[in-house]
Amino acid sequence: MHQTLYIIYIMKLRTLFFSLLLMLQGTMLWAQDAFHLGMAGYTFVKFDIDKTLAFMKKIDVHYLCIKDFHLPIDANAEQIAQFKEKLAAHDVIGYAVGPIYMKDVEAVDKAFAYAQRVGVDLIVGVPGVWGDKGPRYDVLDRVEQKVKETGIRYAIHLHGPDMPLYPDATSIWNDVKDRDPRLGICLDIGHDLRAGSDPIKDLKRYGKRVFDIHLKDVTEGTKAGHAIELGRGAIDFPKFVKMLRKVGYKGSLSLEYEKDMTDPFIGIAESVGYFKSIQQNTH
Amino acid sequence: MHQTLYIIYIMKLRTLFFSLLLMLQGTMLWAQDAFHLGMAGYTFVKFDIDKTLAFMKKIDVHYLCIKDFHLPIDANAEQIAQFKEKLAAHDVIGYAVGPIYMKDVEAVDKAFAYAQRVGVDLIVGVPGVWGDKGPRYDVLDRVEQKVKETGIRYAIHLHGPDMPLYPDATSIWNDVKDRDPRLGICLDIGHDLRAGSDPIKDLKRYGKRVFDIHLKDVTEGTKAGHAIELGRGAIDFPKFVKMLRKVGYKGSLSLEYEKDMTDPFIGIAESVGYFKSIQQNTH
Repeated sequence: MHQTLYIIYIMKLRTLFFSLLLMLQGTMLWAQDAFHLGMAGYTFVKFDIDKTLAFMKKIDVHYLCIKDFHLPIDANAEQIAQFKEKLAAHDVIGYAVGPIYMKDVEAVDKAFAYAQRVGVDLIVGVPGVWGDKGPRYDVLDRVEQKVKETGIRYAIHLHGPDMPLYPDATSIWNDVKDRDPRLGICLDIGHDLRAGSDPIKDLKRYGKRVFDIHLKDVTEGTKAGHAIELGRGAIDFPKFVKMLRKVGYKGSLSLEYEKDMTDPFIGIAESVGYFKSIQQNTH
Repeated sequence: MHQTLYIIYIMKLRTLFFSLLLMLQGTMLWAQDAFHLGMAGYTFVKFDIDKTLAFMKKIDVHYLCIKDFHLPIDANAEQIAQFKEKLAAHDVIGYAVGPIYMKDVEAVDKAFAYAQRVGVDLIVGVPGVWGDKGPRYDVLDRVEQKVKETGIRYAIHLHGPDMPLYPDATSIWNDVKDRDPRLGICLDIGHDLRAGSDPIKDLKRYGKRVFDIHLKDVTEGTKAGHAIELGRGAIDFPKFVKMLRKVGYKGSLSLEYEKDMTDPFIGIAESVGYFKSIQQNTH
């Protein structure tokens, strides 16, 4: 009898040991990368937050950059609390807000107040509006002032060759390099490539000022290049992921999927599978 | 004027040259692997062939193992012609039929006649029916006879620990190794693992007799293991793909996705993205 109990005891110890080992392995796999996959809220411009979150649960992605069509810029404390409860119920962290276009200093103040109420430390923004021939520097000056005041970082979004307002990472770098170090870049790797730049080299060059990344693939590195599922286009993702590790990137890689915005789910899922595989298998 | 024409001519030549180069590159990328991704028709048991093909186009997968619920075993020449036209319109090749359960010799004859009418050189089959305690050897004998008669290969499907009728690759190998070399295995890597076997070692051991593969991932290598998106489970896909190359596998890797059969599309797309990434990035 005692011997039987002893054997059961040993077996339980062994089970415990292997469970611990599995847990450790799991933790190590995830712990290896300081960055994480996320979704750019803009991807879901045609869908409400419930559909968005249900889908994110399905594809096992847990970081969202919050767009104003899901949570309005003038949302009050109660609306924000309800919104964040929904996110939490789906294991999703709203890690930033934006992109927010800022036409004047009032818009800057509103955006920073919004970010404070939401409780994020990062705004993805543009000091200007669609159609501008270049940045609005009075707006950018106010952004810098608010960054210093609030401690919230500000990542300027780049748009590729479609508009002259920050087409690539270098154009942003030139405008932030001599400003507060909490002003930086949201590196849209697809648009950067379409603008004729090399997003992997830009990540290396401007690494410390890259606060957010829009993950996407495009068919070619010209203005004619258009959005496509990750892995089907021109970007070398293994090389890109290795560079993320090299520069010690710690932020989100938020998929902004613009191929088929009225029915993007299949393409997003393929892209997520593609990226997770690269992340797992390039160590 | 002549000089301008000359420059245009040179530019066109350059364009032609780069187009040819791109085509070559594309061909080489695909030509590197003799195997190809496909879909096991069973994945779409809840959907008709139109929905199936529209989805396959979206995920850019071009090989289908035809199941009887999409094309009945007694389909006549006209029905088969219409079915194959549909496939061709979606750039899909029906590379095999099955899995087909065969309860007796008549069922064997029917299945081979069906495969001949469809024009495929491979049947995925089972010499027996669900609930059997083991293979029906009179059926298997007739299969071998028909293989010799028609030249059509026969890959026996394995089922894991859920049924004693061919739980793993070894149980099939033992029954085919001394028979006609056109009798072989449809290696279901998930069920093989769940049966306590190692599908990668089995691929190495039985490589020449593996005619078809059911691609899937499972949560663990026990009977309790269940289907999950590729890359989220227990199978080491980079190692598996390297072994496919090592043994010179030339067939299809057909995704049999059984996690959520009433709404499998998101999970399939994630799995396809995951697998394409492995295939691209393990050379």
